[in-house]
Amino acid sequence: MLVVKIGGSKGINLDNIVKELIHLNEKIVLVHGASDELNELQQKLGIPLETYNLESGFESRKTDEKVLELFEMAYCGKMNKKIVEMLQAKGINAVGLSGIDGRIFEAKRNSAIRIKENEKIKLVKNDLSGRTEKVNAQLIKLLLDNNFVPVLTPPAISFDNKAVNVDGDFSAAVLAVELKADALLLLSNVSGLLENIDNENSLIKKISSKNIDSALDSAKGRMKKKVLAAKNAFEKGVQKVVIGSANIENPIKSALNGQGTVFLNE
Amino acid sequence: MLVVKIGGSKGINLDNIVKELIHLNEKIVLVHGASDELNELQQKLGIPLETYNLESGFESRKTDEKVLELFEMAYCGKMNKKIVEMLQAKGINAVGLSGIDGRIFEAKRNSAIRIKENEKIKLVKNDLSGRTEKVNAQLIKLLLDNNFVPVLTPPAISFDNKAVNVDGDFSAAVLAVELKADALLLLSNVSGLLENIDNENSLIKKISSKNIDSALDSAKGRMKKKVLAAKNAFEKGVQKVVIGSANIENPIKSALNGQGTVFLNE
Repeated sequence: MLVVKIGGSKGINLDNIVKELIHLNEKIVLVHGASDELNELQQKLGIPLETYNLESGFESRKTDEKVLELFEMAYCGKMNKKIVEMLQAKGINAVGLSGIDGRIFEAKRNSAIRIKENEKIKLVKNDLSGRTEKVNAQLIKLLLDNNFVPVLTPPAISFDNKAVNVDGDFSAAVLAVELKADALLLLSNVSGLLENIDNENSLIKKISSKNIDSALDSAKGRMKKKVLAAKNAFEKGVQKVVIGSANIENPIKSALNGQGTVFLNE
Repeated sequence: MLVVKIGGSKGINLDNIVKELIHLNEKIVLVHGASDELNELQQKLGIPLETYNLESGFESRKTDEKVLELFEMAYCGKMNKKIVEMLQAKGINAVGLSGIDGRIFEAKRNSAIRIKENEKIKLVKNDLSGRTEKVNAQLIKLLLDNNFVPVLTPPAISFDNKAVNVDGDFSAAVLAVELKADALLLLSNVSGLLENIDNENSLIKKISSKNIDSALDSAKGRMKKKVLAAKNAFEKGVQKVVIGSANIENPIKSALNGQGTVFLNE
């Protein structure tokens, strides 16, 4: 069984994945993002895009109640239903769910975010963000056993029952571990982790267990989150973890065959 | 087992229903609308609200691709996840789904809508609207058997695989028939069908099987659709059909006890 995360950045071609799924024999769970759709919606409605630079080196979208509402519109409304509609049109019985539904993704809410502002550390409270720590897989298993294809998206629900913005890659990783998936594929609009972010030919083809941490240190922006998610799944026993491209023919088989950045026990 | 439709007009208080569900013993399927949320979203984004006056006397929102996208954001994104979050916070394991997911609501798409314009009949083609004609209940039954509470919303998927704007009341009625529900309750911000739309004291307490059609003729706007939905469920064997208020304490038990407009075999 495979867990495939489709990125939500600009320029990701969904057609390739949809086309491939028609002929795929493995059981599959899709997880997707919609960050670009959310950016666009915020801009159209005049809600400023604000990002926290966390002390840990990661970036996080400022998510108050207004942004969370738009988050749900972009992720659960527009993108989730678009993918489900595309799959249904190909005869694939897809079911779209958020992490709130059936508490599929349960998250620890960020009680206080440590951010870096002008080289000073500042505490931000009450942000509606968190990190998926638990997956309740009963509903997913029920769907898979009955030949439905689950299509999942953030937000998650926090342990104190708030819808919260969580990273989709990390949620997919926790899911892959919980489901004991054979593979976790993180597909987006780049070919994998690049040595030099501006050079598509600088693809790092392998990351061995020994140098995951240095890879994590050197990765930037969105890719840093993908490496963190991959590390989590890989270290918790998912045999095949690949960061690859969604924008090629047969993106799933290509990633399974090692196209992209592959995590290896060496 | 009960099918309860919560209206999507302005001023509907969700708290009453959520509070009541904590103590309700019956199995329940919720269906909801979000027309007010969609109106607001269209206005904010500068997409004009346009309504077709159908030859049949009903009104229908003009739904092109852009409006359908916003429809999914308002219904599946904002409102559906809001209700699921509220229920989860009360310990009710809700699962939010649209009619596209698992093809729960299958609709005949309006190939051509006959509208009245200046007393002339005109044909409108390619609108993304339709009417739910079939319910695929397997997924709903699976959820109910496993103690999840399904929370459903339009759009539906058409027989030719397009997401389409369908009436939520009518979809709930087709669902109640398919599930052989004990009752269909259509709850909104009015107390039931009113003799005089401007007088809350003119509630019609009963509609007998003989005078459904005259009730349907005299009803206006949103209420006309509710009466049509109620008629459909009632004539196809749902024993208890009530159009009632969501804005009272214990709205579900009140409707079951006959508060509102009750359909009766007389």
